[in-house]
Amino acid sequence: MPPSSASSDLPESPAKTDHVAELVRRHFGIVGGELLVGGLPVGELAKRHGTPLFLYDRGVLARQWGALRDTLPEPFEIFYSIKANPNQAFLRFFLDRGCGLEIASSGELCQALAAGCEPARIFFAGPGKSEAELAAALSCGVGEIHVESLLEAARIDALASRGGSPARIALRVNPSADVAGGSMRMGGRAAPFGIDEDQLDAVVDQLARLKALKVVGLHLFIGTQILDHEVLIRQYRAGLDTARRLAAKLDRPLETIDFGGGLGVPYFAHEHRLDLALLRRGLESLVAEVAVDSALSGARLIVEPGRFLTAEAGIYVVRASDVKVSRGKKFVIADGGMNHHLAASGNLGQTIKRNFPVAVINKLDLAPSEAVDVVGPLCTPLDVVARGIDLPPVGVGDLIGVFQSGAYARASSPLGFLSHPTPPEVLVEDGYDRVIRRRGRDEDYLSDQVQDLPALFEE
Amino acid sequence: MPPSSASSDLPESPAKTDHVAELVRRHFGIVGGELLVGGLPVGELAKRHGTPLFLYDRGVLARQWGALRDTLPEPFEIFYSIKANPNQAFLRFFLDRGCGLEIASSGELCQALAAGCEPARIFFAGPGKSEAELAAALSCGVGEIHVESLLEAARIDALASRGGSPARIALRVNPSADVAGGSMRMGGRAAPFGIDEDQLDAVVDQLARLKALKVVGLHLFIGTQILDHEVLIRQYRAGLDTARRLAAKLDRPLETIDFGGGLGVPYFAHEHRLDLALLRRGLESLVAEVAVDSALSGARLIVEPGRFLTAEAGIYVVRASDVKVSRGKKFVIADGGMNHHLAASGNLGQTIKRNFPVAVINKLDLAPSEAVDVVGPLCTPLDVVARGIDLPPVGVGDLIGVFQSGAYARASSPLGFLSHPTPPEVLVEDGYDRVIRRRGRDEDYLSDQVQDLPALFEE
Repeated sequence: MPPSSASSDLPESPAKTDHVAELVRRHFGIVGGELLVGGLPVGELAKRHGTPLFLYDRGVLARQWGALRDTLPEPFEIFYSIKANPNQAFLRFFLDRGCGLEIASSGELCQALAAGCEPARIFFAGPGKSEAELAAALSCGVGEIHVESLLEAARIDALASRGGSPARIALRVNPSADVAGGSMRMGGRAAPFGIDEDQLDAVVDQLARLKALKVVGLHLFIGTQILDHEVLIRQYRAGLDTARRLAAKLDRPLETIDFGGGLGVPYFAHEHRLDLALLRRGLESLVAEVAVDSALSGARLIVEPGRFLTAEAGIYVVRASDVKVSRGKKFVIADGGMNHHLAASGNLGQTIKRNFPVAVINKLDLAPSEAVDVVGPLCTPLDVVARGIDLPPVGVGDLIGVFQSGAYARASSPLGFLSHPTPPEVLVEDGYDRVIRRRGRDEDYLSDQVQDLPALFEE
Repeated sequence: MPPSSASSDLPESPAKTDHVAELVRRHFGIVGGELLVGGLPVGELAKRHGTPLFLYDRGVLARQWGALRDTLPEPFEIFYSIKANPNQAFLRFFLDRGCGLEIASSGELCQALAAGCEPARIFFAGPGKSEAELAAALSCGVGEIHVESLLEAARIDALASRGGSPARIALRVNPSADVAGGSMRMGGRAAPFGIDEDQLDAVVDQLARLKALKVVGLHLFIGTQILDHEVLIRQYRAGLDTARRLAAKLDRPLETIDFGGGLGVPYFAHEHRLDLALLRRGLESLVAEVAVDSALSGARLIVEPGRFLTAEAGIYVVRASDVKVSRGKKFVIADGGMNHHLAASGNLGQTIKRNFPVAVINKLDLAPSEAVDVVGPLCTPLDVVARGIDLPPVGVGDLIGVFQSGAYARASSPLGFLSHPTPPEVLVEDGYDRVIRRRGRDEDYLSDQVQDLPALFEE
């Protein structure tokens, strides 16, 4: 449901965490002070499915998909980067819309196939692919393997030479251009990813000797979490230059140019939303350039976002199980934390912890009244959900929501740390909720352990 | 096996990573340049069980257990803190030696019981215990629940009042004394853990009204990873003062005083090994004090280490799957990384990444020749195993070992990030190796997902 209809009782207090308010207005809605997810009050969802849990609003997935599809001029194709959130429901959602899938392990290959993805619509990228992974990818006929090094190319060639048809590969290139502007910049410097751009000609010469390979494309990965359309456009333009160079060196047109992901969403107070209208304008002129360039005009143009499509759809929901004051400082102790959401705890690549957008989602009509630390249940000071965050009065039983948790949240967290049950995932739309991943049980932690310890180890 | 017999061919080059050399000499041994774990060459173990994997040397567990047991004067009891490494084989190893278990979740309770631990030998600590967790702990009759707040005490009281006998609780106290010296100091400042020492009297007064509880002890947690015996002794001594105060307030002797864990092991180049002889001397004088103090002399004295007992026994073993030079910098790409060992990647509480002790464990006889970055297979710049580390020439297929990986390694890592198979755990002693946790499979990531997506979500 569109959030506008229900969001009228959201207070406009300037002291309010504006970021949360904007997300609620844009994507969710609110009724009686309670957050709506897919049209259902979060209290009802938390009661039905228990906490901690991940809620995903399917309408937001659709909105983000639509926004990106509308931003990208027609020739662009979208490949969803599974690692952001590998839930089968997400994969199927995007596959139903004509999306391809970008994978980075044999586990992700397995997930892509289980979701019903046509192998030709799977691209396999990532450093250090094992021979077993490459063999699996080749045997099921993935669309392209994105090669990270000459050694990897040789491995693929050896495997493919035993099969019938040549392996389709794209060269992943670490660009020389130093295009700043994203977080975790991956181009312009020494990196384990891809082939340095200044080595490209030499590598193509060496690849010519590998007869079971066909270089069909170029794959660029320059950064992630980019919120400036100009940075993206500069990167894409630099990528076209690299593509021209590769086509010239190969002496044939490219079939695909994969610009990577990189489209960001705002997590922190200082961040602004990517301007999709201006991005579209820039991409249109790029596409016009491509159309008149015979080396590129036949190429499929690919982007492979993960975070942009899924982050905003997800909310990590925990319940306050205790509220304490220690030496004048108030702590809200929640029933989940870094074990389920490492990024929110500041332990996934942040040097200084910044708070994700966090709110008391059953009290959205109350103005913030005090700064508190929200911590998780783990017996370590690292387990902080939000530090010094202004919230309305929080009581035991209140629900805390961590927004922007649809990507790189549950998927990249140490779920077993302290052996709490793993959190379920629930997809909601139009008032219907559906469990798309079950909650784990205490016993699950015993399932892969070998119980019959050997007699030889007995004392 | 004692490592001394086999360690003669370890070079004494001053350029060698001394920390690794010391660990190898102390705990493992080496033959033909290859690390021995439990008397078996690591190459053979890697071949038999595949990589990445966690190898544990049972002899090191025994040595660390023995060292700690010898350090603690007789009245001290050891409770193993499960969260460091919850493998059943570890729990059983320590239980066989008369150890108790310290748990922090219902999952850990389940693991403790599965390992055959007598419930009375289980202490349950940690913030934000849920009602369900408390009910489970009470119904199976755990030895003590370590209470973190008045609210928690009231919850336990309500549950216990439905049962027959009063619940045995200890008060976890956040000490006022600012005893510096460990990493992640937990006492002396505002914290979500325990009851502030200056609130202790007031809390005891309020607890007197809860008739289904019996306060039997005190639990202190002041820090972790302490390598200075004087800091530990100061903490323990401050703990005794708190214990006296609590006994006086209760007007009866304490049954237990739990000093927490805190005993460290050296991870990084600047760290020194805890001096156990001096620690013993300090503890002996402490025990002498206790013996003549009627408020304390009947109390069980408890320590609950995790890291000290298990860290040194474990080695995370990965294989180099690619070696690349990018812009003059050499990268070794391993088949595992932050997904299996978050702490080694610097993403578990380190502000600045420091390298764990890392070596090429099939080339321990070669002197280091160049600085390289060892990275894992994940498609993110965060996946760094060791940065700028001096290693001998590394080729594809070489084995890289991350030492000090028996605690807070696999257990606190985002195993599912990028969906690689989870690494097995293998326990080795006297030339016998035994799988104590199976390697995961690609399909495992689908097992908790709901595959029959609802018709109502179909387009």
